[in-house]
Amino acid sequence: MLEQLKEEVFKANLELVELDLVIFTWGNVSAIDREKGLVVIKPSGVSYEDMKASDMVVVDMEGNVVEGNLKSSSDTATHLVLYKAFEGISGVVHTHSAWATSWAQAGRSIPALGTTHADYFYGAIPCTRKLTEEEVASAYEVETGNVIVETFEGLDPVAIPGVLVNNHGPFSWGTSAHNAVHNAKVMEEVAKMAHTTLQLTPGAEIDQFLLDKHYLRKHGKNAYYGQ
Amino acid sequence: MLEQLKEEVFKANLELVELDLVIFTWGNVSAIDREKGLVVIKPSGVSYEDMKASDMVVVDMEGNVVEGNLKSSSDTATHLVLYKAFEGISGVVHTHSAWATSWAQAGRSIPALGTTHADYFYGAIPCTRKLTEEEVASAYEVETGNVIVETFEGLDPVAIPGVLVNNHGPFSWGTSAHNAVHNAKVMEEVAKMAHTTLQLTPGAEIDQFLLDKHYLRKHGKNAYYGQ
Amino acid sequence: MLEQLKEEVFKANLELVELDLVIFTWGNVSAIDREKGLVVIKPSGVSYEDMKASDMVVVDMEGNVVEGNLKSSSDTATHLVLYKAFEGISGVVHTHSAWATSWAQAGRSIPALGTTHADYFYGAIPCTRKLTEEEVASAYEVETGNVIVETFEGLDPVAIPGVLVNNHGPFSWGTSAHNAVHNAKVMEEVAKMAHTTLQLTPGAEIDQFLLDKHYLRKHGKNAYYGQ
Amino acid sequence: MLEQLKEEVFKANLELVELDLVIFTWGNVSAIDREKGLVVIKPSGVSYEDMKASDMVVVDMEGNVVEGNLKSSSDTATHLVLYKAFEGISGVVHTHSAWATSWAQAGRSIPALGTTHADYFYGAIPCTRKLTEEEVASAYEVETGNVIVETFEGLDPVAIPGVLVNNHGPFSWGTSAHNAVHNAKVMEEVAKMAHTTLQLTPGAEIDQFLLDKHYLRKHGKNAYYGQ
Repeated sequence: MLEQLKEEVFKANLELVELDLVIFTWGNVSAIDREKGLVVIKPSGVSYEDMKASDMVVVDMEGNVVEGNLKSSSDTATHLVLYKAFEGISGVVHTHSAWATSWAQAGRSIPALGTTHADYFYGAIPCTRKLTEEEVASAYEVETGNVIVETFEGLDPVAIPGVLVNNHGPFSWGTSAHNAVHNAKVMEEVAKMAHTTLQLTPGAEIDQFLLDKHYLRKHGKNAYYGQ
Repeated sequence: MLEQLKEEVFKANLELVELDLVIFTWGNVSAIDREKGLVVIKPSGVSYEDMKASDMVVVDMEGNVVEGNLKSSSDTATHLVLYKAFEGISGVVHTHSAWATSWAQAGRSIPALGTTHADYFYGAIPCTRKLTEEEVASAYEVETGNVIVETFEGLDPVAIPGVLVNNHGPFSWGTSAHNAVHNAKVMEEVAKMAHTTLQLTPGAEIDQFLLDKHYLRKHGKNAYYGQ
Repeated sequence: MLEQLKEEVFKANLELVELDLVIFTWGNVSAIDREKGLVVIKPSGVSYEDMKASDMVVVDMEGNVVEGNLKSSSDTATHLVLYKAFEGISGVVHTHSAWATSWAQAGRSIPALGTTHADYFYGAIPCTRKLTEEEVASAYEVETGNVIVETFEGLDPVAIPGVLVNNHGPFSWGTSAHNAVHNAKVMEEVAKMAHTTLQLTPGAEIDQFLLDKHYLRKHGKNAYYGQ
Repeated sequence: MLEQLKEEVFKANLELVELDLVIFTWGNVSAIDREKGLVVIKPSGVSYEDMKASDMVVVDMEGNVVEGNLKSSSDTATHLVLYKAFEGISGVVHTHSAWATSWAQAGRSIPALGTTHADYFYGAIPCTRKLTEEEVASAYEVETGNVIVETFEGLDPVAIPGVLVNNHGPFSWGTSAHNAVHNAKVMEEVAKMAHTTLQLTPGAEIDQFLLDKHYLRKHGKNAYYGQ
């Protein structure tokens, strides 16, 4: 079942390696079939070299394995919370990519400082608050999803397709598994450049009208970038 | 038409990838045929893997597509302003390369700190002022070109073949598409080294006579570098 | 003798190169056969390109060469001290990987700042005190091992599978040569990210309960990560 | 003539590229035949891709081309000064490698901070004073050599096989072209690690007895590293 989606999720997981976003098994990608209410996700702790498309695990919206011989990613519950809360997304990615993870460990949102950021993220990429001891002790992976959703109160997850989980690392999402990986790479690049930028000019910032211009020339009904 | 120039522009776009100056579609190269008054430029938002030489778009000096099935780069208008204002140049490059873009986001010119810089850029690589809300709201890409030209008042664009657009990223140029890409790589290298240098010695600087010596041993009528 | 272990140690040495942990001959890997009381280790100063599995040297627990035509690594004595003191380990790695070595040169332990660290190291990766002049002048490589063992008084080397030797560089270990190399790569990644993190937020730290959660979901009797 | 030495110098020049020490034509390697009093050096401004062993230029100790159709490197005069002053060396390398060049631009010597440095350089890698306007205006490349020699008054160039030329970049040397390239790579690595180390611990330093131990276990009559 869902053979095409498995293939897409499989390829998107490999893209993480090609784009230098993960080493070892430090990442996972999923995608959702919203009609069927099923999610395809990477198996837990399987190396990217050994993985096959048929190893992708199909789970329902409660995380039960519907098809597959392997356990699903340990972060499955987090992905499911995001799919439930953010209706406009169809793919989710989690990595420990070095620059974005450093911002997450620092507990800081990545400010919009230039047009590279503005082309993809319509404002700062927020960092969540720290989880409480109770949240970590109970359903940890669910609570990780919940704190992301809480962080996006008042924000549009389609216009800001990524987040930093405090002391942990980045999650990103998009219109497909492939697009979510794309956004993960963009987040890593802007995380790196924001770090250097603030070393050069601690108070650097972008004007709101330039942020608007770049985001809106690529997104929305008046977009004119691309073919 | 202009088949040879298309081939050159196509190859120069691929060089951006080989030299680690762009990811995804984050860059564009053009070249001009000054006799014919035509510019060949990368199409907008087409990936480097899929691109063919025949995809290059030919535009006239007002940006009208003269040949090609694809839309030209969204930055076409900026390239055209530069060709009109800087008569000595035949190729233009725009990237979001990480180090140069960080300086642009920081709103700082890259100072000449050593002979690597002096071999190619005869003085600091300037950063433009920020665009105003009016400039961004009107003909944004034209105004991006205009603010570059304004920045070069009193400077020689042939001797300083690059600029940082504030909150945006680098543009470079040269005697050909290939040469403009070369200068884009040099800018990225000197941006990286200038950052490290100033971390080590905040007030570092180069003597004017050493800057003169290195620039002039490679450029001008008394040059003696190369074959 | 020990042909399989030689093959494992040989391959693990090559992994150091693939994982960008060493240049030239700047690293060595060993593994122990605890039943036979023999250690297989890389020969001294042999380049990774020229090395063959049959070049691996077999030494006894006093460092005498039992088999092999080449001298064993100059760090052999350090490896032996670790195998004697840390009963739970079967592989040892030493590198001069850039980020971990920088922390070692700085004389600082790498603090646990996020879940990447917590997935592998159950607390800070400690840095040893500096060796005394007497220790350096006598059996230097043995004393290097001794100061590591001293540093782990009150710590569990299985739960913290690595250390920084002051002014020198990282040693790591694990359940096999391959696993020790894996831990060397993790140490390099967390060293890099800790540096960036502390530049962004000087007082960053992880809550103990989050450290517990991540370490224990991958290790120990209640682990649930992987297949 | 000197076909074998040409081959060695050619290969050593290519090693600069493989070791990520140069881009474009930003480096040159030479070697000397002391019996014949002849030096083989890279031609000026020729790209590494196009270069052949037969392009290497043979010059005498005054810099006159004895064999070869191309002009020798513009830095030839600097190499010659070093061969004349430092009798123990047989190969010389110049690059603009990013980390070492950054220290040179900062006008700072690279302090010995760990055993990686101590394994190759018996003390800080010195940075020259700035050249005067008169020195730059006269025989610039000769004076670059002279200021290096002046910097080594009281130092042993065999024990410290490299230098930083202020506002310019690194020169290194060794027992052959290949060995000089090796030392250029080591210098780049220790330059990178010293930068990070001093960011972590501004006053970091190595004890003299540890510097002695590591340098002398690899060099001199009591060396015991390697086969």
